[in-house]
Amino acid sequence: MNYPTGIKKTNLKKDHSNINYKNRGMTLESEINLSNEYYREIDKAYIYKKPTPIKITKVDYPSRDKAIIKEAFFTIPSTTDYNGIYKGKYIDFEAKETKSTTSFTLSNIHPHQIKHLSNVINHGGVAFVIVRFTTLNETFLLPAEKLLSYLKKCKRKSIPLTYFKEKAIILNDGYQPRIDYLAVVDNLIGGI
Amino acid sequence: MNYPTGIKKTNLKKDHSNINYKNRGMTLESEINLSNEYYREIDKAYIYKKPTPIKITKVDYPSRDKAIIKEAFFTIPSTTDYNGIYKGKYIDFEAKETKSTTSFTLSNIHPHQIKHLSNVINHGGVAFVIVRFTTLNETFLLPAEKLLSYLKKCKRKSIPLTYFKEKAIILNDGYQPRIDYLAVVDNLIGGI
Repeated sequence: MNYPTGIKKTNLKKDHSNINYKNRGMTLESEINLSNEYYREIDKAYIYKKPTPIKITKVDYPSRDKAIIKEAFFTIPSTTDYNGIYKGKYIDFEAKETKSTTSFTLSNIHPHQIKHLSNVINHGGVAFVIVRFTTLNETFLLPAEKLLSYLKKCKRKSIPLTYFKEKAIILNDGYQPRIDYLAVVDNLIGGI
Repeated sequence: MNYPTGIKKTNLKKDHSNINYKNRGMTLESEINLSNEYYREIDKAYIYKKPTPIKITKVDYPSRDKAIIKEAFFTIPSTTDYNGIYKGKYIDFEAKETKSTTSFTLSNIHPHQIKHLSNVINHGGVAFVIVRFTTLNETFLLPAEKLLSYLKKCKRKSIPLTYFKEKAIILNDGYQPRIDYLAVVDNLIGGI
């Protein structure tokens, strides 16, 4: 479960706090968000992270115009985290980090998210996953087509790093945008 | 501010409870959600409502794997409520209800949502608003182009019902889907 940014660190127990607040620099999520902001600023693409899905069970109204959520739970997302429009194309992707130095565990992506990526491709959209091996500091963009063909052939519960090296595209860190994943998307859609 | 569905009615004060729980039948939001579910079932389009954006300020962990949000606030959405893919096209829209019998107040749509609809059109997507006059039980799909040209010409703070009757397309209630707004989108994109 990914917890959203903006949660007070003091409210997180220690075994959770090291997920989002490690010292190695920005999280993949923050870097993608900054990249998307930059793309919007230069009017290149409109891609947003969806809000974290939650189920609200208790709301208080201390005054007429104020609402405070007093109880809610994180729920499993129906779709992927990011979507939007680029060059008239529907863009859809999921971003994940792993500490492993050898493979990416597939349980990080829910089966219905994989089905969703498949649906997007079938309907003419561009779908992919961005996976960062944080310990190695290597980030890959794996087109959904490659992810799906791997899942079809291999019944393993993880994708080895070697598969990323072979089939995915490396995303290098930059200044602006931090991660220029749309340069890779340009190649995927044939450099329109 | 729209509160999400699933909130216990007992936690809502009376002046709020009549917004989402009126007797006249389903809310526009519920009918659109059901229509989108149907479109997905028949593999026609993948359009989802985005989760309600909130800012989480306090989380408790009663056990290692459980997280309960103990304090959070509704925030202003960055974009519109619905987006997805249909016939290879990026689809984006906002849906609103009004009790008025004469006009739709523009304060219902945030300025950055209007800018967002404009960006979508400029980048080759399909954007619109669905507005229901609940008292009249009339529902309209107004293409974003018509909304923007109205805003350019008129400096009024509302759109009169007559403008909807003239420039928008009426959406009739059906059985499956409840609201067949994609039939209208077919016309907008030239019946591809």
